[in-house]
Amino acid sequence: MGKKPRTAITPTREENFPEWYQQVIKAADMAENSPVRGCMIIKPYGFALWENMQGVFDGMIKEHGVQNAYFPLLIPLEFISREAEHVEGFAKECAVVTHHRLEQGADGKLQPAEAAKLEEPYVIRPTSETIIGDSMARWIQSYRDLPLKLNQWCNVMRWEMRTRMFLRTSEFLWQEGHNAFETAEEAREDSLKMLEAYRHFAEDYLALPVITGEKTEDERFPGAVATYTIEALMQDGKALQAGTSHDLGQNFSKSIGIKFQGRDGAEQLAHTTSWGISTRMIGGMIMVHGDDDGMIMPPKVAPHQVVILPMVMDDNEEQVMTYAQKAADALKEKGIRVLLDSREMRTSDKMWDAIKKGISVRVEIGGREAENGEVTSVRRDLGRESKSTEGLDAFLNRVELTLDQMQADMLQAAKAKRDDAIKDVSSLAELEAMFKDGHPGFVRIDAVVRNDSDYERVMKEYSLTPRCLPFDDAGKVLIAKAY
Amino acid sequence: MGKKPRTAITPTREENFPEWYQQVIKAADMAENSPVRGCMIIKPYGFALWENMQGVFDGMIKEHGVQNAYFPLLIPLEFISREAEHVEGFAKECAVVTHHRLEQGADGKLQPAEAAKLEEPYVIRPTSETIIGDSMARWIQSYRDLPLKLNQWCNVMRWEMRTRMFLRTSEFLWQEGHNAFETAEEAREDSLKMLEAYRHFAEDYLALPVITGEKTEDERFPGAVATYTIEALMQDGKALQAGTSHDLGQNFSKSIGIKFQGRDGAEQLAHTTSWGISTRMIGGMIMVHGDDDGMIMPPKVAPHQVVILPMVMDDNEEQVMTYAQKAADALKEKGIRVLLDSREMRTSDKMWDAIKKGISVRVEIGGREAENGEVTSVRRDLGRESKSTEGLDAFLNRVELTLDQMQADMLQAAKAKRDDAIKDVSSLAELEAMFKDGHPGFVRIDAVVRNDSDYERVMKEYSLTPRCLPFDDAGKVLIAKAY
Repeated sequence: MGKKPRTAITPTREENFPEWYQQVIKAADMAENSPVRGCMIIKPYGFALWENMQGVFDGMIKEHGVQNAYFPLLIPLEFISREAEHVEGFAKECAVVTHHRLEQGADGKLQPAEAAKLEEPYVIRPTSETIIGDSMARWIQSYRDLPLKLNQWCNVMRWEMRTRMFLRTSEFLWQEGHNAFETAEEAREDSLKMLEAYRHFAEDYLALPVITGEKTEDERFPGAVATYTIEALMQDGKALQAGTSHDLGQNFSKSIGIKFQGRDGAEQLAHTTSWGISTRMIGGMIMVHGDDDGMIMPPKVAPHQVVILPMVMDDNEEQVMTYAQKAADALKEKGIRVLLDSREMRTSDKMWDAIKKGISVRVEIGGREAENGEVTSVRRDLGRESKSTEGLDAFLNRVELTLDQMQADMLQAAKAKRDDAIKDVSSLAELEAMFKDGHPGFVRIDAVVRNDSDYERVMKEYSLTPRCLPFDDAGKVLIAKAY
Repeated sequence: MGKKPRTAITPTREENFPEWYQQVIKAADMAENSPVRGCMIIKPYGFALWENMQGVFDGMIKEHGVQNAYFPLLIPLEFISREAEHVEGFAKECAVVTHHRLEQGADGKLQPAEAAKLEEPYVIRPTSETIIGDSMARWIQSYRDLPLKLNQWCNVMRWEMRTRMFLRTSEFLWQEGHNAFETAEEAREDSLKMLEAYRHFAEDYLALPVITGEKTEDERFPGAVATYTIEALMQDGKALQAGTSHDLGQNFSKSIGIKFQGRDGAEQLAHTTSWGISTRMIGGMIMVHGDDDGMIMPPKVAPHQVVILPMVMDDNEEQVMTYAQKAADALKEKGIRVLLDSREMRTSDKMWDAIKKGISVRVEIGGREAENGEVTSVRRDLGRESKSTEGLDAFLNRVELTLDQMQADMLQAAKAKRDDAIKDVSSLAELEAMFKDGHPGFVRIDAVVRNDSDYERVMKEYSLTPRCLPFDDAGKVLIAKAY
């Protein structure tokens, strides 16, 4: 047997996928666990990715007529209680604020001051339907005030017992949109429109192929009439819910009192929607795009689209650095996010750092390149096979094309893998056999399978969950193991 | 006596400044009080202003080499306790999280679940020196890891008993920068550099003239070696601290353990700084720029720089709307933030709405303008006096100039008012006489006044506080009533 090639990440995906995931995050310096239970620290490189994602999606929702605003972090208990299913869904994981002052205890340690106990405790928002709905109830008087489309980018908190960076943390960052409409039809249409925005964002910016569909009744958002979802498939065959859009019907407007005078003069209840995506999507990007050498960033949202590595010798440092700076300036001029890595480190360490961080295109500039006015470049997703040397101008002329091509290729590659991992079964026995052997991915099942008396046992035994009723496959349910 | 001219805001600044302030916010639809004690809701128009402010300042700090990141909302009590002065300064106003689940009590109402009481409570961050310092202690190993410059845009919470929208709320939005350096000199220089960034931002983007200086010892940030401040003067003669930058010396690095191996191989403590500005600045902009008709937005950060009001008759609606849209498109094309106000409302109501919101330039387009290819425009700060009609092309050609001129004029006007309200006194008696008569503004005092045995009494009696030791007036202390 030949020697196993060395990989930058240990273990490999094949050896231990969950551990590989943690190691990719660490190697790319994107995030780390914090001393606060279940909460993560998003490090500068990971946060730069989130900022780029925010920038793109924020522009998309503003085009859709959504206005950003900001609502309080704390929610009165009474608000959370208003919608029966909603409280049922979130009460078990709420961080509760009970005091507003600290004092020194007898042991000299800080403790909540008894005299500063709140009469009515607050929870840290797990989501803001109730408190934003309370404002909507005041702001909406007449059909002329509709539609009202609001969004906030903020932190939310859901106390989680088992956490994984980006995928499931007690505190996470997200956008939560809350729209209100005159008619049921408009609300339904809007929730589907926002789902389409998520699909467009996931596929065309994050290179994340997704299946769109409706959640089954059991998997709906607490209080929703319908929940729509985008579901992505990770390289280990598990699904990830990457974004949801809810048609809340009149459930929240009834319990909160979002009423308006209709065109006929009669009082009516508004129809509302809510929709959210979070830092969880970053976890999905890692598990779809990463390889055994680390992260691969889709160029459209990559913190750095191009990294320049100057490779200097004692006798050419000035020449190489000047030329590298010239190349960096030219790229910046074109609006490319470029990093000139001039740290005092060994070039091979810088190279591996760029690979692990998944910087889309790596440019190497040494004495030969400086002398000949050339650059040597490598696409991260293709690796050394794609290495080529050409004149600086030629490189500059095609760099946008290169990045666009890489973006398209990443989506294409992920789609091919995903499509390979979608199976259909016609009996429960077939389904069971499939999962006995490992993690095949998404499986589409029909009523015959669902109506099998042993269905619940098999689903439970293999930790399978219905992901959605896919729009493209009427009558089917898409199931998978899931994050 | 002549009839008092009608103003859009009642009361006027002269009649009741604090109430005028609240009414301006309401009339401009920027924010409102929330059902959560001491917390405000930032409405879309107010939030759009904050987003523009963020956009500008975020660009400035990135140019300075600062990287954005995100740290947990919750801080362990033990962290807060680490720096003695720091805990003293913040313990009295901390929101404390003690439980992680709700349950239904005997009375059927939700309450914190006793079984889910946290062993160690958390506080919601009032500021993040301690938790960011804890990361820095892990991230910084060697002098090569320095400087490290981090920032986060986030929400913080300080339980306030008496709150006023934007100026003092229990939850507020801000940026908090945290930098670490090798030497004391670098930290001092950096804290002054960030102060200069605040001055530049306040004066050149918000048109807010500020005085820069150092806080007196009593007014320092808890745990700082030196606190630098920008102080603005409101139209009622009270001062507002609009941003602070702290040289923390080695105080935090000592208590948290931010150590590194120096160039000489020996272990050393890092020198840190922190610096922040918040939504409070919006309160300052209102109180400096607003007039008795409402808000006036400095063009560089105005949510809408130009509003177009179509004034249609029954027989020219299509013509006017088409022409108004053409003008809006042309402005958008130039990168101007333009609002075409096509709501179904009386034009005079729209006009007053634009005035109260302080939209920099108002464009009126009626049948005559549409016919002649003209526009009629008014600068919000100059009012009807500045009304002029000209060809669309001429208007488009000078619109950027108009906005720049308005920006410069607003700063100039505010500066003139502020400078008029800076006084010098040479005795305590003179100082007392001055404040007996009202709110003169800033007063510069020297050692003679400060050393008067009656100094403390006068300061207290007139609610005066030292604002800073102004850089431009060595040996003087600047005092004022303050927000």
